Amino acid sequence: MKLSNRILAIDESPIRKLVPIATRAKKNGKKVYHLNIGQPDIKTPKVFMEAINNYDTDVIKYSFSSGEPVLIHAIQDYFKRDEIIFDKKDILITNGGSEAVKFATIAVCDPGDEILIPEPFYSNYNSFTREFNVGIKPITTKAEDGYHLPKKEEIIKLITSKTKAIMFSNPGNPTGTILRLDEMKMMAEIAVEYNLFIISDEVYRGMSFDGLYGISMGTIKGIEEHLIILESVSKRYSACGARIGAICSHNKKLMANVLKLCQARLCVATLEQVGAAALYQLPQTYVDSMKEEYQKRRDIVYNALSNMPGVVCKKPTGAFYSICQLPVENAEEFIIWMLEKFELDGETIMLAPAEGFYITPGLGRNEARIAYVLNEIQMKRAMHILKKGLEAYQQIKK
Amino acid sequence: MKLSNRILAIDESPIRKLVPIATRAKKNGKKVYHLNIGQPDIKTPKVFMEAINNYDTDVIKYSFSSGEPVLIHAIQDYFKRDEIIFDKKDILITNGGSEAVKFATIAVCDPGDEILIPEPFYSNYNSFTREFNVGIKPITTKAEDGYHLPKKEEIIKLITSKTKAIMFSNPGNPTGTILRLDEMKMMAEIAVEYNLFIISDEVYRGMSFDGLYGISMGTIKGIEEHLIILESVSKRYSACGARIGAICSHNKKLMANVLKLCQARLCVATLEQVGAAALYQLPQTYVDSMKEEYQKRRDIVYNALSNMPGVVCKKPTGAFYSICQLPVENAEEFIIWMLEKFELDGETIMLAPAEGFYITPGLGRNEARIAYVLNEIQMKRAMHILKKGLEAYQQIKK
Repeated sequence: MKLSNRILAIDESPIRKLVPIATRAKKNGKKVYHLNIGQPDIKTPKVFMEAINNYDTDVIKYSFSSGEPVLIHAIQDYFKRDEIIFDKKDILITNGGSEAVKFATIAVCDPGDEILIPEPFYSNYNSFTREFNVGIKPITTKAEDGYHLPKKEEIIKLITSKTKAIMFSNPGNPTGTILRLDEMKMMAEIAVEYNLFIISDEVYRGMSFDGLYGISMGTIKGIEEHLIILESVSKRYSACGARIGAICSHNKKLMANVLKLCQARLCVATLEQVGAAALYQLPQTYVDSMKEEYQKRRDIVYNALSNMPGVVCKKPTGAFYSICQLPVENAEEFIIWMLEKFELDGETIMLAPAEGFYITPGLGRNEARIAYVLNEIQMKRAMHILKKGLEAYQQIKK
Repeated sequence: MKLSNRILAIDESPIRKLVPIATRAKKNGKKVYHLNIGQPDIKTPKVFMEAINNYDTDVIKYSFSSGEPVLIHAIQDYFKRDEIIFDKKDILITNGGSEAVKFATIAVCDPGDEILIPEPFYSNYNSFTREFNVGIKPITTKAEDGYHLPKKEEIIKLITSKTKAIMFSNPGNPTGTILRLDEMKMMAEIAVEYNLFIISDEVYRGMSFDGLYGISMGTIKGIEEHLIILESVSKRYSACGARIGAICSHNKKLMANVLKLCQARLCVATLEQVGAAALYQLPQTYVDSMKEEYQKRRDIVYNALSNMPGVVCKKPTGAFYSICQLPVENAEEFIIWMLEKFELDGETIMLAPAEGFYITPGLGRNEARIAYVLNEIQMKRAMHILKKGLEAYQQIKK
């Protein structure tokens, strides 16, 4: 039997496909510093497990399709901190940010339709849209511009009758870039003028450095009917394995229709919702302290990269990623080489090749994404190994 | 902005759409016996919460995309009880049986393709396939045949170049029918002769009465490359809110491709997988005792329905559903009337209108599904209320 064309067209995760190579390296006794995946080392706040351990029920019943009221309420309060007022029906709980992306895609696109996305972008957007036969049209951004958006006229050129939405993550994965207010207002203008939805992936919100705040698109007035915000506990609360996210919008018709998708898959895991509610109830000081920790790491990574000959990297301002050009022809080859052939006192590092974050062929071949998800001492060591690895690689490539 | 045609085409859940009416009835002080949804009252085995409470981790990390090894191993052992041998790569953990249905649909169908499904069928199959622009062609089965399959030539007539798979739940939701071995072999023959996938939804397996066993399609030889089995802890272990399911197949190419879908959405909730592993490790005696409990309830429902004038119902042999023809023109109207207008000493019942389980227009209008998910005393009372309700309704309809 033939499999579907759509599943065959989905690429393997560029982040996960090198995992078997890393596993072999570790089996051979090498220590691998994993900077390839956005899995923070930071402890999940204890309130998460406490809430679950205290949850008293004889039957693990279906939760509400829309989500546990306690969690929806906690997310309402989280948005209220920025004077973004969501009604409880404006928020639907999803299986992580992933399901929120899928639901937004189904809701606004039929097969053959397109979504504009600034590239480089979170590579799983590719898989999610392909599952639904939706196309991505890239808005290419460049390392030398710090991955900020091009001018309005450049973006407008890309819009066709098939374009239904603009989607972006802010703070950006894999770029670590935070959009400026003028960029956000430009996106809002385009959405209104061309009647598009804005799908704003804000799962890294709150993780912003150098005094930047990381404003939500929800604070921009006049786009209430256009805006869909995607949320998650994964990164901000270091609870990736909880798989709790949300899709949020003031567009009542949209949300009534997304509710049908929620009802069809019945509900999101009950216990994890109870735990997630406790996370959202943590005070802003929790988010602030985590932000400080990531800023220290960002500084280590950025300072180290700035001192490596041939490496091009702008200072990231948010999330916990840095994407940089390496002085190599093919970053994936270099990353594999680091795992298979290189070691410094029995240790090596693993990065994510950045080509998979681009959809335009050829772009990103010499770029890699670094997730600063290890503590300061480990990050320093990992950067030292990268430097030595690059030197050795350039020797053998001469 | 326009929403997508595909989301607009999805119907509201026929099971859940009457919930607001029930909520109003309860607010007005009526007690409602819920026979409308497959949410059992049976206690989730304590091992589930124990395993979660004992899970010791500082960081709730991403689980493996394919699933927690301990859970995959437990599911392998569950299948081994019936001499069905799955390699660990033949099993991928999903967000409930729901995600397993979606992944199977994506893997075998492109937009415009079709799946053959015996009707009446689990109504969410409708929503899941519509999300992916896949059509359902019904194999109509009838109350008077106990919802068993028609002859092979009737089924073959429905196959076109667009047909990619046959999907069915066995034991059946909403029918409570268990397929006979000769029916299963016929399905296998058709799949081999017409090069189709078989998607066998076995989430109710083990829940079979009158000495019937409820054989897995996995025991039929010669269809290894064709067969996709869908699993779930929801019903068999009364853990609907855990949202743990699995997609299982010996077809290596299929599973390698489904793994890409798993990787894109990263993983299933870690804690719930740990709990689910403990459920699958329960001895067969647990499943047997639960089966006995449901058989007692089945007997109460069947005996009561058999004694209601004008009600047509074959004895269900599995799952925990009974679907029956009521002596009314429109079952949904009757169900709403029971909630809004009827009461017996302050109590009423809620059934699921069966029309939503059919795709052929007009079928099932006078049928309802009864989920026997309450204890014996409550089921007896609920059946008494149904009898009195039907009598009263027929009086006013005269």
